[in-house]
Parts: sequence; C-alpha cells; structure tokens
Amino acid sequence: MKKLLIINGPNLNLLGKRETDIYGDLSFEEFLEKLQDKYDWVQIDYFQSNVEGELIDKIQEVGYSYDGIILNAAAYTHTSVGIRDAVAAIKAPVIEVHITNTTKREKFRHRSYITPVARGLVMGFGLQSYELAVVSFIE
Amino acid sequence: MKKLLIINGPNLNLLGKRETDIYGDLSFEEFLEKLQDKYDWVQIDYFQSNVEGELIDKIQEVGYSYDGIILNAAAYTHTSVGIRDAVAAIKAPVIEVHITNTTKREKFRHRSYITPVARGLVMGFGLQSYELAVVSFIE
Amino acid sequence: MKKLLIINGPNLNLLGKRETDIYGDLSFEEFLEKLQDKYDWVQIDYFQSNVEGELIDKIQEVGYSYDGIILNAAAYTHTSVGIRDAVAAIKAPVIEVHITNTTKREKFRHRSYITPVARGLVMGFGLQSYELAVVSFIE
Amino acid sequence: MKKLLIINGPNLNLLGKRETDIYGDLSFEEFLEKLQDKYDWVQIDYFQSNVEGELIDKIQEVGYSYDGIILNAAAYTHTSVGIRDAVAAIKAPVIEVHITNTTKREKFRHRSYITPVARGLVMGFGLQSYELAVVSFIE
Amino acid sequence: MKKLLIINGPNLNLLGKRETDIYGDLSFEEFLEKLQDKYDWVQIDYFQSNVEGELIDKIQEVGYSYDGIILNAAAYTHTSVGIRDAVAAIKAPVIEVHITNTTKREKFRHRSYITPVARGLVMGFGLQSYELAVVSFIE
Amino acid sequence: MKKLLIINGPNLNLLGKRETDIYGDLSFEEFLEKLQDKYDWVQIDYFQSNVEGELIDKIQEVGYSYDGIILNAAAYTHTSVGIRDAVAAIKAPVIEVHITNTTKREKFRHRSYITPVARGLVMGFGLQSYELAVVSFIE
Amino acid sequence: MKKLLIINGPNLNLLGKRETDIYGDLSFEEFLEKLQDKYDWVQIDYFQSNVEGELIDKIQEVGYSYDGIILNAAAYTHTSVGIRDAVAAIKAPVIEVHITNTTKREKFRHRSYITPVARGLVMGFGLQSYELAVVSFIE
Amino acid sequence: MKKLLIINGPNLNLLGKRETDIYGDLSFEEFLEKLQDKYDWVQIDYFQSNVEGELIDKIQEVGYSYDGIILNAAAYTHTSVGIRDAVAAIKAPVIEVHITNTTKREKFRHRSYITPVARGLVMGFGLQSYELAVVSFIE
Amino acid sequence: MKKLLIINGPNLNLLGKRETDIYGDLSFEEFLEKLQDKYDWVQIDYFQSNVEGELIDKIQEVGYSYDGIILNAAAYTHTSVGIRDAVAAIKAPVIEVHITNTTKREKFRHRSYITPVARGLVMGFGLQSYELAVVSFIE
Amino acid sequence: MKKLLIINGPNLNLLGKRETDIYGDLSFEEFLEKLQDKYDWVQIDYFQSNVEGELIDKIQEVGYSYDGIILNAAAYTHTSVGIRDAVAAIKAPVIEVHITNTTKREKFRHRSYITPVARGLVMGFGLQSYELAVVSFIE
Amino acid sequence: MKKLLIINGPNLNLLGKRETDIYGDLSFEEFLEKLQDKYDWVQIDYFQSNVEGELIDKIQEVGYSYDGIILNAAAYTHTSVGIRDAVAAIKAPVIEVHITNTTKREKFRHRSYITPVARGLVMGFGLQSYELAVVSFIE
Amino acid sequence: MKKLLIINGPNLNLLGKRETDIYGDLSFEEFLEKLQDKYDWVQIDYFQSNVEGELIDKIQEVGYSYDGIILNAAAYTHTSVGIRDAVAAIKAPVIEVHITNTTKREKFRHRSYITPVARGLVMGFGLQSYELAVVSFIE
Repeated sequence: MKKLLIINGPNLNLLGKRETDIYGDLSFEEFLEKLQDKYDWVQIDYFQSNVEGELIDKIQEVGYSYDGIILNAAAYTHTSVGIRDAVAAIKAPVIEVHITNTTKREKFRHRSYITPVARGLVMGFGLQSYELAVVSFIE
Repeated sequence: MKKLLIINGPNLNLLGKRETDIYGDLSFEEFLEKLQDKYDWVQIDYFQSNVEGELIDKIQEVGYSYDGIILNAAAYTHTSVGIRDAVAAIKAPVIEVHITNTTKREKFRHRSYITPVARGLVMGFGLQSYELAVVSFIE
Repeated sequence: MKKLLIINGPNLNLLGKRETDIYGDLSFEEFLEKLQDKYDWVQIDYFQSNVEGELIDKIQEVGYSYDGIILNAAAYTHTSVGIRDAVAAIKAPVIEVHITNTTKREKFRHRSYITPVARGLVMGFGLQSYELAVVSFIE
Repeated sequence: MKKLLIINGPNLNLLGKRETDIYGDLSFEEFLEKLQDKYDWVQIDYFQSNVEGELIDKIQEVGYSYDGIILNAAAYTHTSVGIRDAVAAIKAPVIEVHITNTTKREKFRHRSYITPVARGLVMGFGLQSYELAVVSFIE
Repeated sequence: MKKLLIINGPNLNLLGKRETDIYGDLSFEEFLEKLQDKYDWVQIDYFQSNVEGELIDKIQEVGYSYDGIILNAAAYTHTSVGIRDAVAAIKAPVIEVHITNTTKREKFRHRSYITPVARGLVMGFGLQSYELAVVSFIE
Repeated sequence: MKKLLIINGPNLNLLGKRETDIYGDLSFEEFLEKLQDKYDWVQIDYFQSNVEGELIDKIQEVGYSYDGIILNAAAYTHTSVGIRDAVAAIKAPVIEVHITNTTKREKFRHRSYITPVARGLVMGFGLQSYELAVVSFIE
Repeated sequence: MKKLLIINGPNLNLLGKRETDIYGDLSFEEFLEKLQDKYDWVQIDYFQSNVEGELIDKIQEVGYSYDGIILNAAAYTHTSVGIRDAVAAIKAPVIEVHITNTTKREKFRHRSYITPVARGLVMGFGLQSYELAVVSFIE
Repeated sequence: MKKLLIINGPNLNLLGKRETDIYGDLSFEEFLEKLQDKYDWVQIDYFQSNVEGELIDKIQEVGYSYDGIILNAAAYTHTSVGIRDAVAAIKAPVIEVHITNTTKREKFRHRSYITPVARGLVMGFGLQSYELAVVSFIE
Repeated sequence: MKKLLIINGPNLNLLGKRETDIYGDLSFEEFLEKLQDKYDWVQIDYFQSNVEGELIDKIQEVGYSYDGIILNAAAYTHTSVGIRDAVAAIKAPVIEVHITNTTKREKFRHRSYITPVARGLVMGFGLQSYELAVVSFIE
Repeated sequence: MKKLLIINGPNLNLLGKRETDIYGDLSFEEFLEKLQDKYDWVQIDYFQSNVEGELIDKIQEVGYSYDGIILNAAAYTHTSVGIRDAVAAIKAPVIEVHITNTTKREKFRHRSYITPVARGLVMGFGLQSYELAVVSFIE
Repeated sequence: MKKLLIINGPNLNLLGKRETDIYGDLSFEEFLEKLQDKYDWVQIDYFQSNVEGELIDKIQEVGYSYDGIILNAAAYTHTSVGIRDAVAAIKAPVIEVHITNTTKREKFRHRSYITPVARGLVMGFGLQSYELAVVSFIE
Repeated sequence: MKKLLIINGPNLNLLGKRETDIYGDLSFEEFLEKLQDKYDWVQIDYFQSNVEGELIDKIQEVGYSYDGIILNAAAYTHTSVGIRDAVAAIKAPVIEVHITNTTKREKFRHRSYITPVARGLVMGFGLQSYELAVVSFIE
C-alpha cells in the first residue's frame, strides 16, 4: 500500500473559516476524509503546522520512508530556503500544490522557493489541486 | 459528451525526436491515442502550430463551444501577450500545462503570460501533465 | 482622394463579443461603416490579422503607396520588434491608436515598441480613438 | 455652450521662442486664437503657469464646472503626483496632450503620472494635438 | 501653552468633497474645530497650500518657535526633497501623518522622503491620525 | 470591557538589556505595567515569542474574540508572509507599531509585509508607540 | 556537395529599399547571386519570411539534413524563444549573423535569444557577415 | 560689464543658520558681498526662492540677456524636470554649483537633472564653489 | 577554560546522510567528537535546530556568558533578520561558517544577513571551516 | 602589403595549457604560425599582455599606421572602459573576436565594452574566429 | 611654494590628436606650459599613464608630501576601486576634474568611483577645468 | 616542504600607514616575519603589486608549482575578471582573504569576482585572516 503525506503550511488550519470567498467554506479535515474514502487503496496521512522548522522536521522524518509528499507550504513557499533544502535533501518525490492561482495575487507570491526542487506543480484548482497530486502518484 | 481541445505550441511537433533525454521518446500522437482510449467518454481533440497567430485563431474558434482547453503554449508561454488576451477573451476554461518544470530552466522561462488568466496550472509531470489536466475536467 | 488603412492586431476581431464591459458591444465592422460614411471623401481600408508576420506583410505592402496607416497592434504593441521595424522602414506616416488607456492595465502593457517610431499616439477614447486619427490626417 | 480649459505647464510660455526646431515658431497665443475661431461654438479658455501648485489650484477651480480640461503638464507630467491627484479628484474629464512624441526623448520623459488618471492621451501631432483633444469633446 | 502647527499639502483642501468613499465627508476645517475644542489647553494652528515652496516657507517660519509640527505632505510626500530638507533643517520635531494607509495604494506612494527625517509616523487611522499625533506631543 | 493584545516578535524580550542606546533601558514588562495602570478600564494582555509560527498561532487564537491587536513583529515584519496572512485572515483589527523609525535603518527594514494588511501604523515614538496604538482603540 | 541554408527574418525582404544609409542599396537577391557564384562548390539556399512560425517550420524542416544554417532572425532575434528552441532542437549547426552592429542600436536589440544556442556569431560587417559565415563552414 | 546671476534654490536661505557643521555659519548674503567686492568689474546679481516655478520664471527672465547663470538648485536638482527644461531652453550658459559633495550624501542626491544640460559643474568646495563658477566666466 | 558554542541551523542534522557528494559522509556528531579531542583545553558545546526561533532563543541564552559562538545558520543565513538581530544584540563574538562556498550555488544564497554583524566569516573548507573558526578563538 | 595586428588580452598566454577542454590544446603561437603561412600576402603581427594599460599603449601605437586590429581583450572585454576609449580614439578599424561563445558563460561576460566601438564581432568559432577576422580584412 | 600634481589617466596622452571635435586640438603639454606660466608662484607637476597600477603608485608617492592632486582618471574614473582606495588613503586633498560633461555621454560614464572620496569636482569646462582646480588650491 | 605564496593587491603596501584605525598600525612585512617564524616548517613567500596585470602574471607564474596561494586582491576583488580567470586557470588552490569584513563597507565591496573560483574564503579577522588561511593548508 502506497504511503503519501499531505503537508500544509501556515494558516491553512483556518480553511473553511478564513476568507471563504477565496478558499471556500470546506475545512481541510472534511475534504481530507472524502479524499481518503475515494482513494482508499492508498494511505494518505496529514500534517499541518504554522512553524517553519516543524515542517522541516516532518519532511525529514518521512522523506526516506514515504512514497510521496504533497506539500502546500502556503506563505513559506515564498520565503523559506529551509523547506526547499529539506525537499532537496530527501528521497521521496514532492509535489507542490496551491489552492489558488498565486500568479493572480501579490507580486511576492509569484516566486516559489519550492518549485525548482519539486517533482511537479499543481495550482489553481481549489482543493482539487490536492486530488490531482494524489492521482499523479497513483497513475 | 464533454469536448476538450489540447493545443500545443511551437516545436512540440518534434516530441519524440528532439532532446529525448529531456522530453522522452514518445511522439505526442502516440501519447494522445492512449489518452483518448483511456478517457473514451470524453472527446479529446488536438491542434498544433508553430505560428502564434494560428494558435490565437484556434483558441478563438473553440473558445465558445468547447468545455475546456488544455494549452501548452511552449515558447510562446513566455513571450505572447496575444495568446494571453485570447485566453482571457473566451468562455471556455483553460488549463496551462508544461511537460518539464520550467523553473529549473533558463530565467526567461520562469515568467508565464498565460498563468494569470488560466484556470489552473499543471507542470513537471512529463506527458502525465496533460492527463492530470484532463482529469481536472472530468472530476 | 487620400488613402488610409486601418490595421488591427490580434483579438480585435472579437470586438463586440469579448469583454464588452471594457471594449463596448459594437463590432469593428459596424463602427467602420459609420466612419467611412462620415468621412466619405477619404478612402478608409481595413485589415485585421492575428498573425504578427501578416501584419508586417501588410504594412510593407501599403507603406509606399498609402497616405497614412492607423495601427492598433493590440497585444503585439508590447512584444513585436518586427512590427516596429516595418513601421520604421516604410514611407507612410503611422498613427498608433488604442481603444483603452493601456496605462491603467497590467504593467507589461505600459511599454509600446511602436510609439517611438510612430508619428503620433491617440489612446483611451474608445473607438473614437480611430476617428481622431483619421481627423489628424485630414486637417 | 460647452466650456473647455486648456492648461499648459512650465516653459510652454516660451513656445515660438525656445527650441523652435522641436516646437515650431508659432507662439501658443497665436495658435489659440485660430483654434477659438475654428471652433467658435465652444468656449475655449487658457491658463499657463510655471508653478506646480498654481496648476493644481486651477484644476481644482474649474474641475466641477467645466466640461473638460486639456492638460499639457509639460515637465510636471513626469514628476507631479500632486497634479495627478488633482486630476483624479475632480469631475471634469481630462485629456492629456503633448506636442512632441515624448517616447522619442530622454528616458525620464517616458513615464507620465497623468496618463493613468486621464480620460485619453493625444501626443506627437505638434500643436494639432490640442485640436484633436478639442474634437474629442465635440464629437 | 504648547504651540502646534498642522500643515496639509496639496489637494487636502478638497477633503469632504473629493473621493469621499476614501477620505470621508468631513471637511478638514470641521474636524479641526472639534480637535481644538477637545485639546483646548494646546494651541493648534493650521496651514494648507498646494504650492511646494509655500510649504517649505511655512516650515522654516515656525520651525524655530513652535513645539511641534504635524505634517501631511500628501502628494509631495513622495516627490519633495525640498520639504525633507526643510524638515531636517529646523528645530521643532515633525510628526508625519497620513489619513489612509499609503502602502495599500499605488507603488509610487510607498516611498516617503519625509519619514527618515521625521520624529515619528502615524498612518491609516483616517482623520484620527492627526489626533494621535497631537496626543504624542501632549503625553 | 475592551480586550487588547500586545504581541511582540523576536528579540523584543531583550528590551532594557540590548542596545539600550537605541531602545532605552526600560524592560517591556515594566513599561506594560504602567500602561495597564493608566488605561485600567481596558484589558491589555501581552505575548512575546521568537518563533514565527507561535506568533501566527497566537494571532489566530485571539483574532476572533479580541477587540484589537497591537503588533510589533520586529524582524519578522520584513520577512514573514505567514504573519501577514494571519493578520489578513482574522476579524480583529491590527495596529502595527515600531519603537524606532525603521526608515532610518538598513534598507531591508524599509519594507513591511504587515503594513498593507494592518489597519494603521505608528512608529518612531519609542515605547510611546504602543500607547498611541492603545489610544487609537479607545477614542 | 555541402548544403547550407540562409534564413532571413522579418523586414529583410526590404533590403536595398529600406533605410539604405544603414543597410546599403543592394537587394539580398543580388548579393546572394554573387555569393553563390563565388562559392559555387557549395549549395547555398535561401528562405525569407516575416512570420515567426514559418521560420520555425523551415528550421525544423532542414535541421536534420543540411550541413549548416546561417540565420539572421532580425527583429525576432530579440523576442523569439520559439526560434531559439527550434535552433536548440535540431542537429545542423547554426551561425547567427547580423548586418549591423546591434550593440550600437536601441537597448532592446542588445539581447539575443539566439546567440546562446548558436555555434557562432558574426555581426557588423554589412552583407559580408553572411560571407564570413559561409567561409566558417568551408574552412 | 558682464552680468551674472546667482540663483539659489530651496532652503539655501537658511545658510548660516541650518546645519552649520555641514554648511558653515556664514549667511549667503555676507558671502555674496565679499564676492561682489572681489570681482567688482562684473555685475553679480542674486535670487533665491523656495518655489520651483519662481526659479523657472527667473531663469526664463534673465536667460536671454545675462552672460551667465550660476545655479544651485538645491533639492530641486534631484527632482525638477521643469528647471532642466528652462536651462535647456535659454541662451545664457548655466554653471551648476553645489556647496557639498552630493555624492557623499543620500543616494537620491546622486542624480542631477541639471548637469546634462549645464555647461559645467563645480561641487564640494563649500561657498568657494560659487567663486570658481564666477572665475570660469571671467577667464 | 574558554567556552565556545557551535550552532547549526536547519537540515544540518542530515549531514552524512544528505547529498553526501556535496557535504561528505561524516555526520556532524562524529566530526565534533574529533574536534573536541583535538582542542580539549577548550569547552566546545553544540546545538542544532530546524526552528528559527529556537536558534534565536539559544543565541540569546549563551550570548552573555560564552566566549564565542560559531554559527552556521544554513538556510536561515539568507532569510532571517531575526537571527541577525540576535547576533547584533549579544556580547559574545560570532563567527559565521559555511561548509560549502555559497557563492558557487544559487543566487539567493549569495546574500547573508549574518555576515555584516559577525566578527568574521570562514567558508568553503568543508567541515574544516568549523575548525578554523575554533582556531580563531584560541590564537 | 596590408598590416594587421592581433592583440590578445589577459590569460590568453595560457592557451594550450589552461582549461584545454574549453580552449583546445593548441598554443596561440602554433596557431599563429599556420595563419601567417596560409595568408602570407598579409603581414600579421601579434601582441599579448596581461596589463590593461599596456594593451592601451599598443592600440595607440599601431592605431594610426596599421590597416586593422584583431582584438581579443579577454577578461578586459567586460571591465575596461580604457581599452574601449583607445579603440574609439584610433583610425584603424578594430574587429573584436572571442574563442568561445561568451553568452553561454557567466552573466558578467555577456556585456562587452568593446563591441559598440568595434567595426565587427566574430565569436564562438574557436581559434577560427581569428581567421574569419583576417578574412574580413582581405575580402 | 605650494606643490600640486596633475595626474592624467588613460588615453589623455592623445589629447590634441584624438576626437578633436570633442576634446579640442591643443595637446596637454602645450596647455600645461601656459598654465605653469600663468600661475608661476605654484609648482605644477604632471604625470600621465595608461596603467591603473602606475596611477596608484604615483598617488601613493606624492600623497604625503604634495599640497594637492588634480586628478583626471579618465576611463578609470568609472571602473577603478583601486584608485579610489589610494585617494582615500593619502593625506593630500584630491580634486577630480573632467574635460567634458560626462553626464552627457554613455550611461556607464555617469558613475564615478572617485567623487565620493574627492574634496571637490570640476567638470565640463574643457581644459579650463584644470585651471579652476588650480585656482581652488590658491584661493 | 610546502610552498605557499601570499599575494597582496593594491594599496596593501600602505598597511600600517593608511587608515590605521581600520587596518591597524602593523606593516605587512612585520606581520609576515612573525608568521614565517611561527610556521617555519612551511615556506611562505610574499608578493605585492598595485598593477592588476602583474598580479595575473604572478598567479600564472606560481600556479603550477606552489601548494597554495593566499590572495587578498583588495580593490581588484570587486572589479577584476582577469584575476578571476587566472585563479580559475591554474592548478594551485587559492584561498581568498580579507582583513576587514567587507560586507560592513560600501555596497560595491560586497561582490567578489574571486570567491566563486576560490577554494575558500576567510575574512574579518584582521591580519589573523592570513594565518587562518595558512593553517587551512597545514591541517
């Protein structure tokens, strides 16, 4: 059974509460449950933290044993060289996802430190972005 | 039956011949056939041109009747305001795809004129990028 | 009888259909007819193409025999050195026009390759921009 | 009867005296008289000052009662946020005009603070630029 | 009795008239009266001009005798080295205030020539910005 | 009774010990006590952390129940998109404060990620900056 | 017998007619004939188009069978990623030539997308630039 | 008898009062008197204003009758296109002077709009800068 | 006995495991032991964390009692103003070290926030960089 | 008999020894001999120095008597305004050559101070670049 | 008797020969003789070299014994940190001079490494620039 | 016996004389003697020149026979591509050293052309920087 980990960065714990016009009113936990049901022949774990270093810790922890990581580093996408280095250091392939199309937002959100070290990027599909990343590991 | 059009920009007609270490040795036509078979309850059409204006013509032509466009504008991604304007003008949602992770390549390939007007972006998965885009329209 | 040619660049064939809140719902052909009637002692011809090279071809073709060209290069305004070179090479004076005030839009629309080689610039008056350019040749 | 005001910025009082190879040898007063005669069913008033604040004062003064302002802010075009703010604050539409094609001159003349808040822009036609602006209000 | 002078730059004489959705519909004179009543043990004088040089003149005039200056240089905030030099030259401390949060507006409003030579900055509180500056002198 | 929270970012726990010529020799705790006494009809709580993610946690925690947050993100002001996103996501208004005038310091301190999403900014008044922010909530 | 193809980009069909003070008054066809006579033991073919995509088509067409391509992409030199990609994709070595010394002209002509993927560059020798490129293939 | 005019820009009326460690404690009037005595076979007039437009007025007024202008535009040196245009428009040669070496000060003082249109530049010699400019007209 | 602390930033806990072609296959713990043996008349302590704020905490904790800190902030070198501020605030001298020559890597690794507040910098010597820093405190 | 001088800049004396994978293993002296033999009806002299000023001296020395200079300024190409000025000052036409295609190397090698004042540029052909330059003088 | 040294940088030995329309047809030696005669109560020595290091040597040599240096570093003005450091290291005051107004020339000539460490700057007066510098030492 | 060469660039011959508050009052010769005594089982030679090309000559001369070079290129660090190329061309490893922490000084001193081709960098330790470099070769 394949093992995938979805990692969400800062403020994504507010999904469903915060700026629902942009992000929708589904909490990530509700969405995750549906995703796990639909793809129940894959193990899909989940981790969220607002602390950059804890995200690095987690990436290191699973980076040598899981089959893939689906990473939405949120705000740290644009500022964290540390997460980039962790992604580059591990063995597991990492797919970067974003709920929104970040190029439609502020200029500082146009640069991602993660993309050049990720295997692939999926963005702009709302929560479906996570599902497409899961599919990419299955097919 | 849903109607999708895959549009490929310049030099993608060389797929399978050109720089096969980067792009693989499958021609796009061979790949397309498999894709059509696998998702045979969707109509997947295909168009390729090296001429910027012909890409614009095609986008305009199908932009009010198809359910979606999967666009790999290749080199024009980084230089064509005209294709961007066509994408913005039509009704059909457009998914931007790239075979490679363009942020790993030359700096001028990091900017896409298309992304800010596209519905979503899928890149870095090889030819699977096209399939994920198809899936995004089905789910 | 003076001979003028109006040249429209990419996507302007969608006028009246596309983003009508920005560009109005009059097609260019309808507008042109009125313009020709009002200034019927001048010959006002019209050409539109989405292909950069065809615009260059046309500019070269009429550039030594017409009395003036009214050029809305649309998206190519911001990216085409080729059209600029054609404008600089010919004898006929060229007036650059834009329907909207491009400085109110995205940053990449603020630079025009055409303006430095055009005789004059008229922009922001909607379709009236074309009429003012015609007037500039008559007076 | 429509009321228009032409406002000229710094050094335009030297027209006809200064750099006549660039600006021609007609003084603005002589030109104005002809313009008023030709369009005598419109009231065309005139104001010139070298002081940025006086131009702001004048724009504020007529901005709620005139039908339009034709503004050549000259050097202040490129440096005055204050005039921009005045233009943005008033009710009367403002047409920006320039005698020369400023994009053919020094780089610092390529940016206009006024254009993004103006209704339209006419430039490069010599003194005819003013006339085209008048026409735009009449038609 | 402490003596303070509030200095307002260009277009602030339009407060209550101009863009009332941004600036509110209270004129500055009405606001000032309330402020003077509330803090009646301090002398609060007022000066407004659209002319950069007159603002410099006034800063020089009171700069050696008043206890403080509350300066909203408006548009000149972003362009005037002269006002900066006047602020740097005098003895009285200067508090820079802005009604709006200028970092939410156009990019050219993000730089202030005044801030590096001001004692403090208060911005974004609407007209209350002025009151907080007054409080800073009292406490 | 209104509830306010003062949040201090990294190294502000050293106040009174570190670089006392710049920041003064009062510890923040001593200052806070005086502030609470003076405005004892308002509840003023306090939180400090050197960890970016803990600041985000705290902002999220109080962001839907407090009447206001007074935030000195210190070094994170210039580097944290995560804190910015937290500020933008919550309901409580946030006032940004700085002890020093950051525009007098190194260039990288001139940009604040926080200001564009804050309600207002007070800076340069030493510890009084916090008091003015408190006043802004009371008045 | 070696086979070479000379490819000329937009507006070079005007050679001998356009700006003859810069480019000389010899048409390219006249020059080509002399070149073919002088080096008659080599096959020197010729292609010109104003359409970017047709240049790409041609490069692809001969790129696997000819011994070399001499490419003057003219205006597209500075804007076409598509031609660059075609040059990089094929087997035949490409020599970039320019009639004039482009570094003496406008700043946007200083960057060539072609040079980094070309075998060599010859520029500034007038039409002799083409001859030197031919010589480079012979020697 | 030669006629020279010294024009001083904003805040130079504070010389001798303001920042005397930088500018010295001699007022300009005292210095001027000595200068006039030493070079009494030349007419040396003087004008100072804090208003940009009045400086332009004065340059225009004497620009066709005086033998030379010695201009210290102070803060306007770095921001005034209007003064630059006035200097370029007149007949009298203009020498730009600065008391201090502006390249030792803030970055925005490194650019002068005046220098490219001035005959010469003298800076860094304290008040002697004016004298050297006078000498340049005499020799 | 002198007390030194070596502080390692994010991902350096992977030394010996990660990218061993770049960083070698010695874990930092193994290296440290040898270092402590060789310089056994100095106390060399060690701390590693992936959390920016914990690094700040530690720097503050030892910054007033240790004789020196040897800091390899790794990824935070390029993004952390907070660590910089901590280094600047404490009494103990800090030597910045890097295993690799960071100027040979990506552009964003060329800027260090730490260097301007460090006593010295040693980089490019592999793990020997740490030893040279130790030597600098002994000599 | 025509007189040409080949001038080589710094480190080109190492040709054949240094980085032979890039520059080949032929010393320049060996290559030169062959070149002189092949074109023995032209006088081809040679000069090499690592000192910028000696290159300037030599350019000045032959610049009024030789028929042409073939200049590979190597590293000074990118940094020497002095050599540029020498080239601009003399009568003899100068052809700039480079062995490698400098646009494929570090960014700082993309700018040449020499090209804008040279007659022509030949680069990327290995040592054949020198021969093509010789041919350009003969034909 | 005061001792001054005039130092001229690269290519100034060509004065009177090179580009005489810009620099005049007087050689520097002829000009120097006149200058020495006119100010014969001052010792005016002269040194010229095209070698950057020799200019540094000379500045060091006289920098502790002469009363002043008049330095026209020519091309090295814009590229030499070494000459700047030499000027900053010595005791004798240095006046920077230029024959032409360098701000009217290429952009790379607008920056001087020398000016920020020079006592004063005189430029644009032709050879008179040197004389004004001499006068500045005498008065 | 290992052979090392210390190479010092421009103005370092003034050590002990120049700006002693920055560089200390020890001449380099005095320091060198102590260094040679302390590490007398290594041969430590020394070379200094103000001429860029002589530094290149020396690097080439010893670059194939010495065990290491310790290079303080001083001002040329920031401007010399020629020295960089020499360092890259030779066999002996080069350690770059600086007495001061150059990132605390002017911006143009922040870039080193040498570092990317050096084996390691030691800076900010005063003259001890040289000793640490020596140690790096011994250990």
